[in-house]
Amino acid sequence: MENYPPPLDSVFHALADPTRRAVVQRLGQGPATVSDLAKPFPMGLPAFLKHLGVLESAGLIDTQKAGRTRTCTLQQARLAQAGSWFDDQRALWASRYDNLDTLLSALGGHGHDH
Amino acid sequence: MENYPPPLDSVFHALADPTRRAVVQRLGQGPATVSDLAKPFPMGLPAFLKHLGVLESAGLIDTQKAGRTRTCTLQQARLAQAGSWFDDQRALWASRYDNLDTLLSALGGHGHDH
Repeated sequence: MENYPPPLDSVFHALADPTRRAVVQRLGQGPATVSDLAKPFPMGLPAFLKHLGVLESAGLIDTQKAGRTRTCTLQQARLAQAGSWFDDQRALWASRYDNLDTLLSALGGHGHDH
Repeated sequence: MENYPPPLDSVFHALADPTRRAVVQRLGQGPATVSDLAKPFPMGLPAFLKHLGVLESAGLIDTQKAGRTRTCTLQQARLAQAGSWFDDQRALWASRYDNLDTLLSALGGHGHDH
């Protein structure tokens, strides 16, 4: 039915939560440590780590440990892949409206003389 | 943390399924009846109607009954709202890379004479 691989399921699932979208948005400005990322959120660290786990499973973030610090990086390619799904839908509508314009012009040309 | 209303949660949840994405894609070409929409999918009508219910709750589709026929229409504005979330993320990365370019130019101008 569609040309997109299953990973889109997990990406959209991961983005269906305001905390996880906020983390993606923050990481769009550059990598950040888990403790810096967690600060703004009114939840315990275990709950926050669970959100990071969902983002990591979906391939939206990558985490790396250096000593006692874990740093998260946005995987822009994966996010862009999901974004391109919307671009494709827009292109579909656009082609539909182009066809409609063509049809309306044809009908207009047929029915009226300007 | 973000300027997007809660509906984004339900839109992304609705899109986290290949059947529901395929329905959205099909309706991008124009309204369709439930029976026409259901045909390509290897599942019973109750299961398919459940998917349509998720799409309707998320505001992605609208359904209208005329006689015994129910017709589904894509709510493009809602889909576009979710798509614009990705556009905003891209704009964030772009501004970040612009800043990086400026920094690199400044460093280059400082360190080397061409």
